[in-house]
Amino acid sequence: MTTESLVLEIKKKQSFLCIGLDVDLDKIPKHLLQEEDPIFAFNKAIIDATHHLAVAYKPNTAFYEAYGIKGWMSLEKTIAYLNSNYPEIFTIADAKRGDIGNTSKMYAKAFFEDLGFDSVTVAPYMGKDSVEPFLSFKDKHTILLALTSNQGAFDFQTKKVNGDALYNEVLRTSKTWENAKNLMYVIGATKAEYLSKIREIIPDSFLLVPGVGAQGGNLKDVCKYGMTKNVGLLINSSRGIIYASSEKDFAKAAAGKAKELQSQMQQILSK
Amino acid sequence: MTTESLVLEIKKKQSFLCIGLDVDLDKIPKHLLQEEDPIFAFNKAIIDATHHLAVAYKPNTAFYEAYGIKGWMSLEKTIAYLNSNYPEIFTIADAKRGDIGNTSKMYAKAFFEDLGFDSVTVAPYMGKDSVEPFLSFKDKHTILLALTSNQGAFDFQTKKVNGDALYNEVLRTSKTWENAKNLMYVIGATKAEYLSKIREIIPDSFLLVPGVGAQGGNLKDVCKYGMTKNVGLLINSSRGIIYASSEKDFAKAAAGKAKELQSQMQQILSK
Repeated sequence: MTTESLVLEIKKKQSFLCIGLDVDLDKIPKHLLQEEDPIFAFNKAIIDATHHLAVAYKPNTAFYEAYGIKGWMSLEKTIAYLNSNYPEIFTIADAKRGDIGNTSKMYAKAFFEDLGFDSVTVAPYMGKDSVEPFLSFKDKHTILLALTSNQGAFDFQTKKVNGDALYNEVLRTSKTWENAKNLMYVIGATKAEYLSKIREIIPDSFLLVPGVGAQGGNLKDVCKYGMTKNVGLLINSSRGIIYASSEKDFAKAAAGKAKELQSQMQQILSK
Repeated sequence: MTTESLVLEIKKKQSFLCIGLDVDLDKIPKHLLQEEDPIFAFNKAIIDATHHLAVAYKPNTAFYEAYGIKGWMSLEKTIAYLNSNYPEIFTIADAKRGDIGNTSKMYAKAFFEDLGFDSVTVAPYMGKDSVEPFLSFKDKHTILLALTSNQGAFDFQTKKVNGDALYNEVLRTSKTWENAKNLMYVIGATKAEYLSKIREIIPDSFLLVPGVGAQGGNLKDVCKYGMTKNVGLLINSSRGIIYASSEKDFAKAAAGKAKELQSQMQQILSK
């Protein structure tokens, strides 16, 4: 998917909501456990109930890998279902991959070509030749971890390198890589005040922002400091939406929570 | 597996060789493509021919994921084969994972419990709470990326933080984490001269050293600067061993290359 198509979809739906499909069999409604593929049944219901409120879905691959082959089959079914039924939706494999060149190429092929995701999250630690293989795919997007929303972000990401935080060094350096136009960045919502500085370095790039909701970030602040003329934000919520209810009404409850966020987004976009 | 068992095995075999199982269907002997599971058939033959020369095997998960469900089945069969037939072998899932706490726990469960690997490689960028979930498993090992063997290592890993390289900051910080005794580190062989400084920070930890062979590192230098009284090194070679021949004699040729390295190791250990 092109960035232009994503922006059009955001404007049409008045939403820049991304829903994280982090499916845990211990948390989904009990009645789904009788299904042949409970994870896919859960995802399908959530997607069908929320697709008009969200512009992106983000399965975190860890949750699928944790169930082995069965989990991978659920992931394949989920992305195939999205691509067949809602091709206008932007899809993110939250995989946080990154390896030496020829290996990153294998990962890129797996997520972009075989599974058919529009984007994948990638870790920056191994540098340019671990990320560029992802960037070479046309109309596919590489979402580089810059500033994450967890406490551990303060261990290395905020440490000073060349007089500035490491995550800003990651932003600056990655801009020089081949096909850098295909880069987006993960920037945690827990540190909204950092966004002004970030926007000086990458004024136009899309940011995937986790940490609104369960992790405590504030939507208004993120938009105040991070929004661009093309919106430039995808706000992710996972547990706050998909586990809104653990009863038979789970999909409806999820849609209710998604609607709350979408309404706030509509209000912000209308200003 | 305990570190003590690994050290005993190294002394018994006079080898600290790790063989990387990075299987690419374009590179394996053509006759194997008729097998029901060519990747597993290849791995099984390589393992059977080299298990007496190596103390560890390291499948890079990217190569398996690239083939989707089939690839994951080949990975499952490979680790199950190793655990059943050669339980004395140390197994490494080269997955370079790392995510926020509850997600890292899912990855740890997948690799340690479900698949049954002894260790997994993990990226440090997200800090303490992304790594500690891996460290809490008894007799399982977390191999943290510190200094990798690719060119991109110079983008961030060698940048100065608090007056020292970021990878040394990673070593120092990670030592303070809970269950840090379960940490090992990836240190690329292409920079053997850095090892003296590294050994000042982590005098006893095991290092997984890629980059001998295809990536140009030098075995003698690595041992000179990096070896401890318990050896403390696992030297990985992937392509140089497993693709020694693309004919029917591939397993024998791989054993020949493994024997060359093991002989050099034996010589070094005898000094």
